[in-house]
Amino acid sequence: MAADVTSIAVREIGSFHIGGTMETLSGLPRRQRVSTRGGPIHEIDPNGELMVGQMYVQYVRLSAPKCPLPLLLWHGGGMTGVNWETTPDGRPGWQMFFLRAGFDVYVSDAVERGRASWAPYPDIYDGAPFFRTAREAWEETFRFGPPGSWHADPARRQPHPDARFDAVYMETFMCQCVPRWEGNNARTQAAYDQLLAKLGESIVITHSQGGNFGLTAALHAPTRVRAVISLEPSGAPDPDEADAALLRDVPHLFLWGDYLDRHAFWVHSVPNVRRWHDALRAAGGDSEWIDLPARGIRGNTHALMADDNSDDLATIVLDWLQRHGLV
Amino acid sequence: MAADVTSIAVREIGSFHIGGTMETLSGLPRRQRVSTRGGPIHEIDPNGELMVGQMYVQYVRLSAPKCPLPLLLWHGGGMTGVNWETTPDGRPGWQMFFLRAGFDVYVSDAVERGRASWAPYPDIYDGAPFFRTAREAWEETFRFGPPGSWHADPARRQPHPDARFDAVYMETFMCQCVPRWEGNNARTQAAYDQLLAKLGESIVITHSQGGNFGLTAALHAPTRVRAVISLEPSGAPDPDEADAALLRDVPHLFLWGDYLDRHAFWVHSVPNVRRWHDALRAAGGDSEWIDLPARGIRGNTHALMADDNSDDLATIVLDWLQRHGLV
Repeated sequence: MAADVTSIAVREIGSFHIGGTMETLSGLPRRQRVSTRGGPIHEIDPNGELMVGQMYVQYVRLSAPKCPLPLLLWHGGGMTGVNWETTPDGRPGWQMFFLRAGFDVYVSDAVERGRASWAPYPDIYDGAPFFRTAREAWEETFRFGPPGSWHADPARRQPHPDARFDAVYMETFMCQCVPRWEGNNARTQAAYDQLLAKLGESIVITHSQGGNFGLTAALHAPTRVRAVISLEPSGAPDPDEADAALLRDVPHLFLWGDYLDRHAFWVHSVPNVRRWHDALRAAGGDSEWIDLPARGIRGNTHALMADDNSDDLATIVLDWLQRHGLV
Repeated sequence: MAADVTSIAVREIGSFHIGGTMETLSGLPRRQRVSTRGGPIHEIDPNGELMVGQMYVQYVRLSAPKCPLPLLLWHGGGMTGVNWETTPDGRPGWQMFFLRAGFDVYVSDAVERGRASWAPYPDIYDGAPFFRTAREAWEETFRFGPPGSWHADPARRQPHPDARFDAVYMETFMCQCVPRWEGNNARTQAAYDQLLAKLGESIVITHSQGGNFGLTAALHAPTRVRAVISLEPSGAPDPDEADAALLRDVPHLFLWGDYLDRHAFWVHSVPNVRRWHDALRAAGGDSEWIDLPARGIRGNTHALMADDNSDDLATIVLDWLQRHGLV
């Protein structure tokens, strides 16, 4: 089933921030600044109250949604909601796919990312951020090519031979990356939990680092989260600490691409997620684990929503939602 | 004229980044990170190529735009494109207003802001960023209250008595603020110029720091920029350095709110912009300077697109565009 390419009737496009508290800086020296080319020098006092811990959410509400539940798209680490928009190769992304499928879609930028803003370190955040290098994206996290295959010269990069992310779009992909910190898990989880409290019953689709937040949000609000779809989550709750039985009525779907056994980060991460999936099933839950290569779908990288078959993968998710009576 | 509240037919919502180059970091120590709660410790090499200088642009393209020209919304300093979305008090913002008026609307996050991402300092950016404090926003830049009137306790804040920004939404407003740097004017201007080169003939609406970028972009491409609407620009080209006659065929509109004579930053900034307006007119250009209080519209802060009469102000702009045959 291909995405419908006709227009959509939109009631409203809008946004809000959720979470966040005013925190106070003090004892910092004053600074001088010129705020526009040719403008006056003026003094800046960095001390005072500023907002910390807010998350950004942009929504597109349809005039006549087919599904009564909002569909929430939560990005991964070092990324923003842009991941769900136009793909690096210029095709409509999952945001448009699910709008055309009849959902009101809410795309967030988690705490510290994109339009959510970030706070000073070490004053408020614990330490310095991590910036994604192209090598890390290529060889490790996103599995575009095997370890050792990245090269600054585009002509000398060696992607996985059948990779579904076209290497010519690597620079475009890198434009989407934003810095990340290690110490904001609690702030981020709190903001996602507040988002669900605000919206009520919702469908949550996550990617990568967003996975652990989505799976945990379901644990925190099993009556609000009506389904959790996790695209290659990098982590999951620990079944020795969390009670999977709370989620007996919340269907879960896990979707996995190719080359997972060839990249150390994923070799170490997937078993943690598998334990949670197994715990959900052992507790009588409805959890499905889709290994795309086992279905004959080869070449998917970690950028599942950007790969050349992104619409096909969205269709797998849509079919699963339909089978679960959610659209 | 009130904004139409019926639905809009949307062809596509999407986004892209423009500008940006791969730059290389070297000589930095490796770090360790846990990327998800309970996940494995893995080593991060911060050295390598990363993307620097890109700008983010999100577009909403209508099925049947009334105006053939895209309308570009460029935010101000320490802000992102969120400024044009839902107002802090929850009403549709200028993005929705101009969509309903029949324009394809392109909202950008400038270099270093929001979904455009930012680069390491001092490795790539010159120095540390500036974070907006609530006091600076309240007393100086946004003129919500007079100097000395900010207080951390909401009950003790003293806004300008007739201010059109309701103080109860101050925390919501602060959620929209992002850090800014002083040294990225050239990168930002380059990205805006590239955006116009990509889109061709366009209408540019700017706010605050975005003003100087918009006025300069018109100078750089006077056949592409069909009109420049500047909401309280904080700066403008210097008529001793730039040739205003190049813009004889590009209509300009400047829109100004209240209390400008009571805040030092604006006392020092407005004359620089006035000189450019006067130069445009002296060169035979079409430049209009609207002082809202002089028209009997009192109480507008620097947050013109968030004030309680934001739709009325957008209507002033729309009428001006209509008078200039641009819609």
